[in-house]
Amino acid sequence: MVVDARTGLPVVGIVGAGQLARMCQPPAIELGISLRVLAAAPDDSAALVIPDVVVGDHTDLDDLRRLAVGCDVVTWDHEHVPGSHIATLAAEGVAVRPGASALRYAQDKGDMRRRLTELGVPCPEWVDLEPADDPKRTLAEFGARVGWPLVLKASRHGYDGKGVWTIDGLDDAADLLASGTAMLAEELVPIARELAVDVARNPSGDLAAWPVVETVQREGICVEVLAPAPALGAALESEARSIARTVAEALDVAGVLAVELFETTDGRLVVNELAMRPHNSGHWTIEGSRTSQFEQHLRAVLDLPLGDTAVTAPVTVMANVLAGGGDLEPAGLDERLATALGTWPDAKIHLYDKSWRPGRKVGHVTAQGNHRDIVRERAVAAASFLAQGDPGSRS
Amino acid sequence: MVVDARTGLPVVGIVGAGQLARMCQPPAIELGISLRVLAAAPDDSAALVIPDVVVGDHTDLDDLRRLAVGCDVVTWDHEHVPGSHIATLAAEGVAVRPGASALRYAQDKGDMRRRLTELGVPCPEWVDLEPADDPKRTLAEFGARVGWPLVLKASRHGYDGKGVWTIDGLDDAADLLASGTAMLAEELVPIARELAVDVARNPSGDLAAWPVVETVQREGICVEVLAPAPALGAALESEARSIARTVAEALDVAGVLAVELFETTDGRLVVNELAMRPHNSGHWTIEGSRTSQFEQHLRAVLDLPLGDTAVTAPVTVMANVLAGGGDLEPAGLDERLATALGTWPDAKIHLYDKSWRPGRKVGHVTAQGNHRDIVRERAVAAASFLAQGDPGSRS
Repeated sequence: MVVDARTGLPVVGIVGAGQLARMCQPPAIELGISLRVLAAAPDDSAALVIPDVVVGDHTDLDDLRRLAVGCDVVTWDHEHVPGSHIATLAAEGVAVRPGASALRYAQDKGDMRRRLTELGVPCPEWVDLEPADDPKRTLAEFGARVGWPLVLKASRHGYDGKGVWTIDGLDDAADLLASGTAMLAEELVPIARELAVDVARNPSGDLAAWPVVETVQREGICVEVLAPAPALGAALESEARSIARTVAEALDVAGVLAVELFETTDGRLVVNELAMRPHNSGHWTIEGSRTSQFEQHLRAVLDLPLGDTAVTAPVTVMANVLAGGGDLEPAGLDERLATALGTWPDAKIHLYDKSWRPGRKVGHVTAQGNHRDIVRERAVAAASFLAQGDPGSRS
Repeated sequence: MVVDARTGLPVVGIVGAGQLARMCQPPAIELGISLRVLAAAPDDSAALVIPDVVVGDHTDLDDLRRLAVGCDVVTWDHEHVPGSHIATLAAEGVAVRPGASALRYAQDKGDMRRRLTELGVPCPEWVDLEPADDPKRTLAEFGARVGWPLVLKASRHGYDGKGVWTIDGLDDAADLLASGTAMLAEELVPIARELAVDVARNPSGDLAAWPVVETVQREGICVEVLAPAPALGAALESEARSIARTVAEALDVAGVLAVELFETTDGRLVVNELAMRPHNSGHWTIEGSRTSQFEQHLRAVLDLPLGDTAVTAPVTVMANVLAGGGDLEPAGLDERLATALGTWPDAKIHLYDKSWRPGRKVGHVTAQGNHRDIVRERAVAAASFLAQGDPGSRS
């Protein structure tokens, strides 16, 4: 292991300097591990709290190389680095985790669906429109088979509901098909609720899972996470964990893997998305588990032993702070923080120091306790208050 | 409140960049608060993990002024800033917390003993030798009254047992008295064990206490903290908290106050030392309390509402990692960290990225659970292993 001469301990490079890289800094500080981030701008969320910043472009191979110098391992705040660059870095001797051969399944939804289907992992019915000679006819045949409405997804670069469209028929799809965007189509699954299971795996093959959680979505954006998922039952808990283990092992994931799932109205699980990095569904682990997803990700990519994932309370609820509509600046945030700390003394407030755009995730609040309804009300009220000065409008 | 234009949230300046300032960074990151440190060197423990570093000398008024520019409040990693400089900063409009009028009681043991005695707070019998016309005769009379051996203490600049001497008689004191060091003498209290009570107070007068803990000392250095203090009893718990409240309020402390206590063999409490900053006796609160002393200190000096100090487990034990004798560099620390993470997956390891001198505090380990003996054994074994590759030598 290469180590920092000043600390005797390793250095982890992170491509991207958003809130996920930022939230890796507290456990890195605790373990004595140094972080180095590739930031698009010096005031990116993580760049404000990590001294070792390389400002550059994650699509520029030379910028990626500048980050990698002196790092034991390079990992990711997001999935937007070209796979060819990742492969080049690896060929040049950089330890990149997860590597290109795993990350492609978090980058390309067509590749992901194909691989999961091969593995026997339950997915919605789907068809890839990208390689089709006549995508319109392929879509028409698929719609005739699974029924309308159905879902079109951009194969790459979607997040938070972007790049996902529900369409009622071929006419709705015309503009999208004409745009040249690589897409796949999926049946519109009858969703009872959304779940997620987060696991971590290190290159030695150790694997650790947190309990399955419920993710509450609004307009394609995660607004709350309930940990553990209420009334899930042992069979679905076990099946979800089994899916995550299968995916992590078959795809040779190193680091945290988040598997987003739909629970269907008839009680089945199907995989929605994969992410190979710390994920919004795991923010609750900062307080809610003995080892947070951020600490575990660092351990995993460094091939260190994984930490205990036991929960610290019967119920943990995380609510995102979504920047209020119309507020382009966090005006008054200092006063709202002061009020929130006084009003909810047991809630843990996390703010990301990001610029505010309406609906953007700019922080989160975690509450814990024994009674889910009480805990949830407190987390949601505090998060709403921080976002817009009104504790009631989201509950 | 002045706020950082990028974040909309306040900036806290910390004089000194040791492990206490370093451990303020994780909760600052979580709350979106920015830290700025005055470091003696760019590779000081906190300077490695906080981007905004002013390199300078804490005894240089201009360096202190450079730190203060753009900070909402200035606070302390240690007590070594001259009181006159602190008063000057305050006169120039800088919010310094705790202020010079409080901090003097953590800087000068004679002033502290005089003030606590006025307040009726139980102290050892003591006499100030600094203003005495004939310190030798004053010491002889004091020894005749309280008995030999007794304790000589340097009034200023002592820490971790440095500046404290047990002397059997006047002859032992001759060199010390001749050195010109300002000193006081104290009776040698019959100590059953050492305790500490940590509280936080903000300028609005809110006060929050953590449970009283036992601090296990070896050669004047804290090696373990047992939280809560085993078998203390409600009366002593209440008395200790009352002492801390009296001191915090009478001395107008802002921030964390640590009161170190002796429990005597006849069941009394007497105050040993005061510290007005996060303190080794409170490191257990990072995992062991809903609000850590580091988060609470930031809240307190910013006059924000204080957080919930409920404990997160029945028993929390902290063991310091004390650099092994002879090891001037942390050689092999990366491998010991890897082994320790695998051997004690439930223990939380904290490393400070400090250079190793024998006996220096370079990290700590926290373990939690229901059974003190088991928890303690695990914390101590992991800390010993990290220090010297041997889990058994300290237990």
